[in-house]
Amino acid sequence: MIVMVTGSQPNPCQNPIGDHLLLRAFKNKVDYCRIHGYDVFYNNVLLHPRMKSYWAKLPVVKAAMLAHPEAEWIWWVDSDAVITDMEYKLPLDRYNYKGHNLAVHGWPKLIYEEKSWTSLNASVFLIRNCQWSMDFIDAWANMGTISPDYKKWGEIQRSVFKDKLFPESNDQTALIYLIYKDRRLTDKIYLEGEYYFKGYWVEIVPTYYNITKKYRPGTGDGAGGDRS
Amino acid sequence: MIVMVTGSQPNPCQNPIGDHLLLRAFKNKVDYCRIHGYDVFYNNVLLHPRMKSYWAKLPVVKAAMLAHPEAEWIWWVDSDAVITDMEYKLPLDRYNYKGHNLAVHGWPKLIYEEKSWTSLNASVFLIRNCQWSMDFIDAWANMGTISPDYKKWGEIQRSVFKDKLFPESNDQTALIYLIYKDRRLTDKIYLEGEYYFKGYWVEIVPTYYNITKKYRPGTGDGAGGDRS
Repeated sequence: MIVMVTGSQPNPCQNPIGDHLLLRAFKNKVDYCRIHGYDVFYNNVLLHPRMKSYWAKLPVVKAAMLAHPEAEWIWWVDSDAVITDMEYKLPLDRYNYKGHNLAVHGWPKLIYEEKSWTSLNASVFLIRNCQWSMDFIDAWANMGTISPDYKKWGEIQRSVFKDKLFPESNDQTALIYLIYKDRRLTDKIYLEGEYYFKGYWVEIVPTYYNITKKYRPGTGDGAGGDRS
Repeated sequence: MIVMVTGSQPNPCQNPIGDHLLLRAFKNKVDYCRIHGYDVFYNNVLLHPRMKSYWAKLPVVKAAMLAHPEAEWIWWVDSDAVITDMEYKLPLDRYNYKGHNLAVHGWPKLIYEEKSWTSLNASVFLIRNCQWSMDFIDAWANMGTISPDYKKWGEIQRSVFKDKLFPESNDQTALIYLIYKDRRLTDKIYLEGEYYFKGYWVEIVPTYYNITKKYRPGTGDGAGGDRS
């Protein structure tokens, strides 16, 4: 059983079309989950008064774990992420094979060699509903706004990951930092680089040029055609 | 199997908080459907170029019927409608008892005696996925914007339902008109008046005053308490 968790701020977006895009992105997720039989939950309240913006997702994921003991996996998907292949199925076998508890799009080479703050993308991740995950989220959150050392963590992140230009500690760099400091974490954290588990649109959109070339005629049942 | 169908216009709402409210109202419906195991579909395209505004729902409901042959019922819920009781269950036994194909909130007395255009509320209805419903939707739609007699239908509606002040034929008055002209339709159309299957907020909100008085302590499982 999988629960997709997403959400956005409690108040209207200041961009005039912001909430319209959120509505359409939520429709996209609901459609995907209906097709695949997943539950979907949209959170629009802050569960911790000091965990806002990109830090808000961590208490939400934790709450979803507790509220859904029947769910083996919680799949966090940022509100502005869109599922581009409605036939996509989570390759759970791959993550179960060696007992990984967290799957996130990223590249070890960029973490350990390039030391880039974009060496993984934390806006989509799949996390197993287990004690390891709860503890890991706590460790992760401890680099965020709830930490007395929040400001220091921002400085540490910038000192290691030179391409990070903004001073605040953010969730993505915090996750990278944890993996960077303790490489053994990759025994439990699957850095998915074999396909775009989550891609930044600037990299994704150019791959769509004449994408239909790859399609063979479908069966007409809306499930798409055979591809090779 | 029940499919809840809802939706709104393809473009951003002009009211600055409009889309935010649509997002929250959709969350409300998705939450309700997750709890009860219903499928939910949000439509945001116009399926017929001449069926806009409140007429747009009819081709959407028809399309949902065809796309979901596994669904016995299609439950249309306007985008701005909110489910206020998350424990509410559709009283399907009631609608199945005498083989009704359409359930909508309304009062026969107001249709046949008062002749009011608010004698039923067409923004929420439950319709059985069957040939009768397909034919009925066609008859209903024929009073709308696709009809060559669209203008005439508006005049006819106003001549019968005196409290209707705007000139255009609308879906709700069209439905009332059909039932008004052929009382035998109530053999197939259940006018639900025993509870607020759908209520206008002006009538609903005052009933919420100290609603917790009616509650007994719950079990703490989030499913609410025993009420009497």
